[in-house]
Amino acid sequence: MAHIELDDNVPGLPSLLRFRPETAGPLSALAEALLRGPGPLPRGERELIAAYVSELNGCRFCASSHGACAAAQLPGGMTLVQQVHADPGAAPVSGKLKALLGIAAAVQRGGREVGDEHIAAARDAGATDVEIHDTVLIAAAFCMYNRYVDGLATSAPENPAAYAQMAERLVVDGYGAAAAPR
Amino acid sequence: MAHIELDDNVPGLPSLLRFRPETAGPLSALAEALLRGPGPLPRGERELIAAYVSELNGCRFCASSHGACAAAQLPGGMTLVQQVHADPGAAPVSGKLKALLGIAAAVQRGGREVGDEHIAAARDAGATDVEIHDTVLIAAAFCMYNRYVDGLATSAPENPAAYAQMAERLVVDGYGAAAAPR
Repeated sequence: MAHIELDDNVPGLPSLLRFRPETAGPLSALAEALLRGPGPLPRGERELIAAYVSELNGCRFCASSHGACAAAQLPGGMTLVQQVHADPGAAPVSGKLKALLGIAAAVQRGGREVGDEHIAAARDAGATDVEIHDTVLIAAAFCMYNRYVDGLATSAPENPAAYAQMAERLVVDGYGAAAAPR
Repeated sequence: MAHIELDDNVPGLPSLLRFRPETAGPLSALAEALLRGPGPLPRGERELIAAYVSELNGCRFCASSHGACAAAQLPGGMTLVQQVHADPGAAPVSGKLKALLGIAAAVQRGGREVGDEHIAAARDAGATDVEIHDTVLIAAAFCMYNRYVDGLATSAPENPAAYAQMAERLVVDGYGAAAAPR
């Protein structure tokens, strides 16, 4: 049961966006800018970073929903998402993405955990300033969304099909529509 | 030195807002809604929660700037901010605010660290659903801002007067103006 009174028929973050429309706007706009707005990283890779950080934070709702969004937008699908969760260093992704996932994991532990060596590895693999920036901010933002969703003990569907269905909608409509009643 | 190329004359979060205007909008709007928008918690207490979480995360820029904003809007001033940083349980704040700071500290450790006992203590002290929600989201959001600011190794002024000056401006103009060039 959630820590505050939420709509029982709505899970995870969407239940909180409905509860407090005043903060729903900026939270949705931030997700849209980070995961779908103009930027050098492909949308599927941004979702993969979000899912990976959420998995490290043990946030089932966010790891499952963004994992499904990543799977829907990457050739490797859900198998790749699971490979990254299990061991990003061994997953069949580019050296650049591996280095960016290393930065994301450091951010998840804490801002001051990101060392010159993480940045150097990303640069050596061809990452630009904007790619490094976007990776740090996506990872940091999911340390917020995960804490928000779990800190208020929102519900999370157990059926993977529910997340695949959510992802189908998000990939088409984006995050701006997430707060709108359906 | 920052991990990416930022304007040397601008410290902390503002340097990042300038670097990436696409995400600056939602990040500033979120800070404005959380710390100054319509809500039941006084602005000074919201800033105090933000400063406390930032202190727990060891983020000097955010702890100092939001500590200065809290000091500017609470009768206890900087002495009170320092008392809360040292030991919120012993600080001269209301029982409700103590319980909310307890929730914020749990969120800082992780979303799933917030237990029924934290929520019950806040309710017993008179906290409403919206106050509990806003506390969790402020604490979660500063786990993002702190990681963003420190994960990219932005600069932080050493002189407390610099933060007092920032706070003076923020208390009047709000966070919407933070991204605008001056």
